[in-house]
Amino acid sequence: MADVSSVRVLAIASHVTSGYVGNTMATFCLQTLGCEVSAIHTVNYSNHVAYRRFKGRKSTSEEVAELYAGLKETGLANFEVMLSGYCPSASVVEEVGKIARDVKLRANTRPGSFFWALDPVMGDNGRLYVPEETVPIYKGLIRDADLILPNQFEAELLSEVKIHDLTSISEAITKLHQEYNVPHVIITSVRLSSDGSTATSSQDSAQPVATLSVVGSTATTDFKPRLFQITVPAFPIMFSGTGDMFAALVVARLRQTVDQAGVLDQAQWRSPDEVAASDLPLARATEKALASMNAVLENTAAHYAAVAASLESDPLMALPEDSPEEAIATNNMQRHLRLTHAAEVRVVQNTEALRNPPHPEDFRAHSL
Amino acid sequence: MADVSSVRVLAIASHVTSGYVGNTMATFCLQTLGCEVSAIHTVNYSNHVAYRRFKGRKSTSEEVAELYAGLKETGLANFEVMLSGYCPSASVVEEVGKIARDVKLRANTRPGSFFWALDPVMGDNGRLYVPEETVPIYKGLIRDADLILPNQFEAELLSEVKIHDLTSISEAITKLHQEYNVPHVIITSVRLSSDGSTATSSQDSAQPVATLSVVGSTATTDFKPRLFQITVPAFPIMFSGTGDMFAALVVARLRQTVDQAGVLDQAQWRSPDEVAASDLPLARATEKALASMNAVLENTAAHYAAVAASLESDPLMALPEDSPEEAIATNNMQRHLRLTHAAEVRVVQNTEALRNPPHPEDFRAHSL
Repeated sequence: MADVSSVRVLAIASHVTSGYVGNTMATFCLQTLGCEVSAIHTVNYSNHVAYRRFKGRKSTSEEVAELYAGLKETGLANFEVMLSGYCPSASVVEEVGKIARDVKLRANTRPGSFFWALDPVMGDNGRLYVPEETVPIYKGLIRDADLILPNQFEAELLSEVKIHDLTSISEAITKLHQEYNVPHVIITSVRLSSDGSTATSSQDSAQPVATLSVVGSTATTDFKPRLFQITVPAFPIMFSGTGDMFAALVVARLRQTVDQAGVLDQAQWRSPDEVAASDLPLARATEKALASMNAVLENTAAHYAAVAASLESDPLMALPEDSPEEAIATNNMQRHLRLTHAAEVRVVQNTEALRNPPHPEDFRAHSL
Repeated sequence: MADVSSVRVLAIASHVTSGYVGNTMATFCLQTLGCEVSAIHTVNYSNHVAYRRFKGRKSTSEEVAELYAGLKETGLANFEVMLSGYCPSASVVEEVGKIARDVKLRANTRPGSFFWALDPVMGDNGRLYVPEETVPIYKGLIRDADLILPNQFEAELLSEVKIHDLTSISEAITKLHQEYNVPHVIITSVRLSSDGSTATSSQDSAQPVATLSVVGSTATTDFKPRLFQITVPAFPIMFSGTGDMFAALVVARLRQTVDQAGVLDQAQWRSPDEVAASDLPLARATEKALASMNAVLENTAAHYAAVAASLESDPLMALPEDSPEEAIATNNMQRHLRLTHAAEVRVVQNTEALRNPPHPEDFRAHSL
């Protein structure tokens, strides 16, 4: 069986001491699948920012560059896969691009021997959470990437197509393929109504949406999209790090499915034009990644529900209604912190689901 | 079955981008056993120093303190176990001590609810590799630790007993128990000749020694040692990170065996005085840790041998005998880098051996 054991992956993203986002999430998921992960951290924070409190520091582009230079001098920069995520500054984004181009240059003796999965982390739900000047720099980098995994908002930023239904998703992906020459695209988590239109604005994210759609494509040789869609249950919980988990699982599974399909030696792991969208290695990889994720998130949601229930019945968390404002604020903050902690994705407790995606048949891709 | 799933561990040690030492090793081992690990990195290097080339930076004590302060403010500092390793400066050692005392203070409502395993990383084979002023600071910290895991050289530094045979090992451990009030001690990797005497100096480390001894003890209430010994095969390869691996596996397995023995609610996880040395939870934990390690190192040694053989037959590595000195030096450095890489411990490929220690019967502790 094709596997990903010992595949050398360079992971560049954030690090948190407690919890699972960025490299802290991606490294463990990739290692659990057997990959040799080299992690360069773009920030070192105590915890992720959704707690609303955190401490720590951002890495400078010089620090990122120095770690990579150390790997090169030691003969350890022979990576087969690179996965890049959150960068705290425009200069770090630029440095990540330089590193990717350098690894690619060193690997260019053989087609398919290096693959860069770029998660262009810029924002979500209509809100940018990186400096504005980062956006044009990402646009410049994507030409060198092999796979990008924007969310709906990031896909809109990069394609300049407003996404509101499957037709506009198709337009956006087509534009990403053609303008940036990027062969593999996955738009993660699009909220589509049953009539195929998206939730109209970020305000709607508070509304319960029963499912999320993931739409991906591997371009043909003439850069036409081959679109597939997978629908997954949506959980009414604010998880963090799920994008990082998805990217890590997809890239590892893609390495595996591309190997199984015999196209590992094709430039950019492209599939022959006759392969249908729903038969693409990228579609197979996405199915496996989503099946693993769904099982891990189900387990996390059950844990979250138990913690939420225990908070409800905790006499220490009960406040009389006429409590002073400050006491209420403190109480709300405590509740928020404990619930945010309860929503930390339970990856270490669910390694079996990472290794053997349960019920993959529930996550079949269909061609659009 | 008692397990360590979701046990909250604070790990403070070094981080490397490529390879497995310090936190990079300990975190993965602990996570594979199901622990929730929060990692604070004392350095961020490209690779470990045995490559002889590396880049990156040391953390300052302020950075270490800040990450811990972030955890506290977010309600995430409720650790049950702390594992501390390499610190690059005396001020970081001091900061680690402050953190351990603070976590202990916050956990002190219930005996046994916090346990600090301290690996006093100072040097090896007669050579100090931390600043000299670190030694007295470690001596001050050990009073607050629950388990220490010095190697032979570090045990000598701390006990001021020269170790040359089982009698002097016993003296050293007795002194560590009594002077520092530390209940659990393991001296890792002592080279004992068949007559029970140690190899006389660091020069002897190049000599093949077929076995290494691990000697541990949990003190009785009157701080008498209960000594056990386990003999393990020695590999003729310079591995890095094995001390970190051992410490991580021992502390996780100790949490489990202490739970099984029903002494998790005893202060410092101490066992009743009537428990014999070879029946101690510490002895059981050491057996499991060594059984896992031996399997992982066997696999790594086989990989190393294959790489070494391929280097021998690699025409690119062959140099005519009359080559210029510079060419020979470059060639030797390349060989060294590749062999050092080949000796990286193969933990991600051997998670099953971490989870289910194979042949534990080969690593039985016997009382001394």
